[in-house]
Amino acid sequence: MQKITVFSPATVANLSCGYDVLGMCLAHIGDEITVTKIAAKGIKIAKMKGFDLPLDATKNAAGASALALLKKIDIDFGFEIEIVKKVHPGSGIGSSASSAAGSVFAINELLGRPFSKMQLIAFAMEGERVACGAPIADNVAPAILGGFTLVKSTNPLKVLSLPTLNDLFVVILHPQIEIKTADARNILPKEIPLTAAVKQWANVGSLISALYEKDYDLFSESLEDVIVEPYRSKLIPDFNQVKLISLEAGSLGCGISGSGPAIFSICKGEKSAINVTEKINTFYGTTSINFHIFITKVNSEGIKIMQPKYT
Amino acid sequence: MQKITVFSPATVANLSCGYDVLGMCLAHIGDEITVTKIAAKGIKIAKMKGFDLPLDATKNAAGASALALLKKIDIDFGFEIEIVKKVHPGSGIGSSASSAAGSVFAINELLGRPFSKMQLIAFAMEGERVACGAPIADNVAPAILGGFTLVKSTNPLKVLSLPTLNDLFVVILHPQIEIKTADARNILPKEIPLTAAVKQWANVGSLISALYEKDYDLFSESLEDVIVEPYRSKLIPDFNQVKLISLEAGSLGCGISGSGPAIFSICKGEKSAINVTEKINTFYGTTSINFHIFITKVNSEGIKIMQPKYT
Repeated sequence: MQKITVFSPATVANLSCGYDVLGMCLAHIGDEITVTKIAAKGIKIAKMKGFDLPLDATKNAAGASALALLKKIDIDFGFEIEIVKKVHPGSGIGSSASSAAGSVFAINELLGRPFSKMQLIAFAMEGERVACGAPIADNVAPAILGGFTLVKSTNPLKVLSLPTLNDLFVVILHPQIEIKTADARNILPKEIPLTAAVKQWANVGSLISALYEKDYDLFSESLEDVIVEPYRSKLIPDFNQVKLISLEAGSLGCGISGSGPAIFSICKGEKSAINVTEKINTFYGTTSINFHIFITKVNSEGIKIMQPKYT
Repeated sequence: MQKITVFSPATVANLSCGYDVLGMCLAHIGDEITVTKIAAKGIKIAKMKGFDLPLDATKNAAGASALALLKKIDIDFGFEIEIVKKVHPGSGIGSSASSAAGSVFAINELLGRPFSKMQLIAFAMEGERVACGAPIADNVAPAILGGFTLVKSTNPLKVLSLPTLNDLFVVILHPQIEIKTADARNILPKEIPLTAAVKQWANVGSLISALYEKDYDLFSESLEDVIVEPYRSKLIPDFNQVKLISLEAGSLGCGISGSGPAIFSICKGEKSAINVTEKINTFYGTTSINFHIFITKVNSEGIKIMQPKYT
């Protein structure tokens, strides 16, 4: 195989209660990344469609993760990467993770899979380091593994794949404002009340139990964030109103996707998701903020091959 | 039925990572509580064997929980309670919870079970309020439900029963020193670092996943407390040394039981538990502290009836 194209999905990190540890993979939105084996050693970002991002491989999420992979293998050729960027940078649904994960997944396929998925996550984290300033795993893990994931630790790297509830739809509202990940992290306090932390880890625990028990009510009750959301929601116009509308319209939970500004609503069934989308759409249309809104599903597979080309 | 005797087990709260939310029920140690229906209304603590605790029902854990139950039912008779107290007060293995849970469980049986287990937990929490100064649920929940439990919230009360791993043995070291629950709570900081909290909720999440997945290694790795143990361990002589010895001898995890001073070690298999016990016993024998040490199992049933007497 000389060339492969993969679909590398968008993701929702944190999932309300699980700041920095929980993540969920989305189905219908992701970058399309084509990697071609070339004679020249190293990594070349050959094309970038959709958004204007660095073509210098060391400064590009997909390039930096690929370079991290190359350091761990001795080969006398290189790879050219073409990115059709569909996940809006700065949206909060794992845009850099999508690219960072996609390139290493594709290269691993071209090489005959010498690396495990856990190793690919570690490489992709280096792409996150370039894009976000920190080698975070909570988006790249669900992008690569699919479904729901828990990052137990990053050093050593340990990520768990969690069960997925059936029939989950996700509504993403993306207000067209920019929130830098660094700013979203800096707004958080360094210290938090112990009582709030206890509530948060009770919610993380019950969310995970809910996934195993297939308990939608418990899942819904656990999607609560008493630590991060009170701070970050201030950066997102009308967040509280959107959340209220989403829950009243029947969503199981509504929160900030990653560091925002995207807001996710998780719904049981498509009908509920359509209702939630319509209600949010009507309300957000009355604000002065430009926005996108769309419905997708939880993606239990993660990254997948779109087009392998054998030569 | 006029009279019933129940075995109300000791419990380990917190389980390292799950401060205030996780708990585990023990098998071979518990209070024996006999409740007899009497003509006089109200609750009378008729006998207390083993330890010198208040006989005034309003000041006794078993009495206070029973009084909370009586408030929720209209009956023209009362109950007499005899307590054979076997769980050492102030040991940290849920002594007050054992009594608080036992009395209401027994009364509920005599009344033909008008109350759910969740309601019994709520009554028993009132016993904890009298004994510990706060209506905590993390001991009474596993005493009543058995196995591993997660207190998702206390208001409203929501407790989850979690799966149990097979073949788990628990070694309890009880240094004969007194730590008051209130002191053990006051030593904790009101604010904790966000980074430590993230580590803690990742551990709570992975512990719960480990119970569902029957993954002993993950269970072991998750039994880590970066928040509470660094403070409370200072109150327990040679805690760090005991922990080191326990882990080196093969335990899956070792931590402070509740607010201490008891130290628990969880082991896979009896052979491992015996080895851990011997190693800890030898070491603690070299200290100047009097202590008890014993091996028990995880009790998946919770409180059970020892002797119903039909009249």
